[in-house]
Amino acid sequence: MQESATFDAKKAMEAYRTAFENGSSEFLTRYPETELYAPVRYLMGLGGKRLRPVLVMAACEAAGGRPEAALPAALAVELFHNFTLMHDDIMDDAPLRRGKPTVHEKWDNNTAILSGDALHVMACEALLDAPDKALPDLLRTYHRTALEVCEGQEQDMAFESRSDVKIEEYMEMIRLKTSVLLAAALDMGGKSGGADEQTREALYEFGLHVGLAFQLQDDYLDAFGNPKNFGKQVGGDILADKKTFLLIRALEKAQGADFEALQCELGRRSEGKVQRVLDLYRHLGVDAELRDAMAGQVSLAEGALARLKSHNPKALKDSGGALALLHGVAAMVTARLS
Amino acid sequence: MQESATFDAKKAMEAYRTAFENGSSEFLTRYPETELYAPVRYLMGLGGKRLRPVLVMAACEAAGGRPEAALPAALAVELFHNFTLMHDDIMDDAPLRRGKPTVHEKWDNNTAILSGDALHVMACEALLDAPDKALPDLLRTYHRTALEVCEGQEQDMAFESRSDVKIEEYMEMIRLKTSVLLAAALDMGGKSGGADEQTREALYEFGLHVGLAFQLQDDYLDAFGNPKNFGKQVGGDILADKKTFLLIRALEKAQGADFEALQCELGRRSEGKVQRVLDLYRHLGVDAELRDAMAGQVSLAEGALARLKSHNPKALKDSGGALALLHGVAAMVTARLS
Repeated sequence: MQESATFDAKKAMEAYRTAFENGSSEFLTRYPETELYAPVRYLMGLGGKRLRPVLVMAACEAAGGRPEAALPAALAVELFHNFTLMHDDIMDDAPLRRGKPTVHEKWDNNTAILSGDALHVMACEALLDAPDKALPDLLRTYHRTALEVCEGQEQDMAFESRSDVKIEEYMEMIRLKTSVLLAAALDMGGKSGGADEQTREALYEFGLHVGLAFQLQDDYLDAFGNPKNFGKQVGGDILADKKTFLLIRALEKAQGADFEALQCELGRRSEGKVQRVLDLYRHLGVDAELRDAMAGQVSLAEGALARLKSHNPKALKDSGGALALLHGVAAMVTARLS
Repeated sequence: MQESATFDAKKAMEAYRTAFENGSSEFLTRYPETELYAPVRYLMGLGGKRLRPVLVMAACEAAGGRPEAALPAALAVELFHNFTLMHDDIMDDAPLRRGKPTVHEKWDNNTAILSGDALHVMACEALLDAPDKALPDLLRTYHRTALEVCEGQEQDMAFESRSDVKIEEYMEMIRLKTSVLLAAALDMGGKSGGADEQTREALYEFGLHVGLAFQLQDDYLDAFGNPKNFGKQVGGDILADKKTFLLIRALEKAQGADFEALQCELGRRSEGKVQRVLDLYRHLGVDAELRDAMAGQVSLAEGALARLKSHNPKALKDSGGALALLHGVAAMVTARLS
């Protein structure tokens, strides 16, 4: 990406984030300062990149709409995302979220269940501010996506007790658990901006492949990331025997002594485990396979973006920042690998 | 109620129930037969009186609509109710629901959290089948009510660790936890049948007071019910020191030796506890107070019904069964006490 495009993308991202944070603060004032909403305010206050609402707004502007028109959808998507975090953290027994205690740790499980349920309703209420004409359609996408995310979480939990997960099943699980919400974010942003069917399809597909690329990147960085930049403990997935792209493909490919060696590491946390498993991954070539898979998703995302551009030359020309941002998001995946 | 009206009410209730059960079975076929939905099918299959969807349909017909028009709202309300049961049973650590193992007992907590979340989304999807024109309004009522129910559950849980709950707080808690959903059922049924604002207000108020009456009746029957008809263990609330209308009012009224005696029973399950507490309740007159409170709610419900009739003479005349059913539901509260 050229330097000026990078500048446009960063500027656009900041502008969308600020608009979202303002809209979010304003939205939360509608709810009383009672116990039920305290965990909602806490979790929403932990921040994060706000990638999903930023994408909603960028898609809206890329489709020729004003970014403010996308605020109801942006709020719905981000509130929904935080609701899934609150409940997933209970299910995964996670102690920390963005470096702070999770809701069920700070309060208790019952509070996290109930305030999560309330947060889910708040996400729906946020979407009701969309114009009545667009509403049924937005709601259909939104709820359909919500169920897919639940299905993805169900599959993810089921994989924990299985040793025969196939890579196709894994790709389907991350599609449901992570990617469809990014895809829906772009689709709903497009709809909020008045996009036609073809534009929405291109936006959805872009989001889907970017989402898959991000998830694969997570798997890659957890194993091969630079500890200085990564933020989390490198090798955490390996220590937990988590069924990532790397482990599943390694189990599929390994034979003879390699297979024995890999099996021997699973279920134990002996010293030097991370290094030995990383060596096995490299030896089996699953690290290169994962980079290829990521590059494939990025290229599919860029293909969707190209279709978007050829279908909407006018709207996209006028929204330079939004387009640069979408390109930039796709480029982020490969950039962080180097 | 006259004999012929009772007959009309029963016939109408059976017709609505059958229509609901058929619609519900049909609706559930939209979802795949996967693990995520198994607990949903299980819980919905446990049946129950289906009072809420029956009321949605009766209100629709009372407002001059055809009961089929109310099916989306009826499904939404009943699915939502079952979602709250699935999550409340985790929070209350309840082993049984309608005489069968609760979802978190039959599966586990994580499954009950996640399938409950999916059920919540399904309730929203059911409502999307309502006509686009009525949808925004139905959704506003529905989500607002959902949050009130969450607030009620939060207050109920908070009361457990408090010894100073006032009767006004208790009435507000049961309004939120139980009554607003019945009120919303009637309101949404009315809206589905094309009711005007005044009709909807009367329906909402009717549901609110009927709901309060039912909840107070639960408190009464748990203490003074006939063990043969009651279905549950009489005295269960007393053994668990549950903060019901009776206990809260007794704690407010008791003085001197009575107060000492009551305090002495709390936190212990000594032999003869139920009988001694019942004697105290009678001695303090809180049983009569509770009967008066119920009668007051029934009379407020009947007042709302009278306003409904005077405002919609034509529609109600044509829907004899629906009107008889609404009268019958209010009459059920007092009938079951004798």
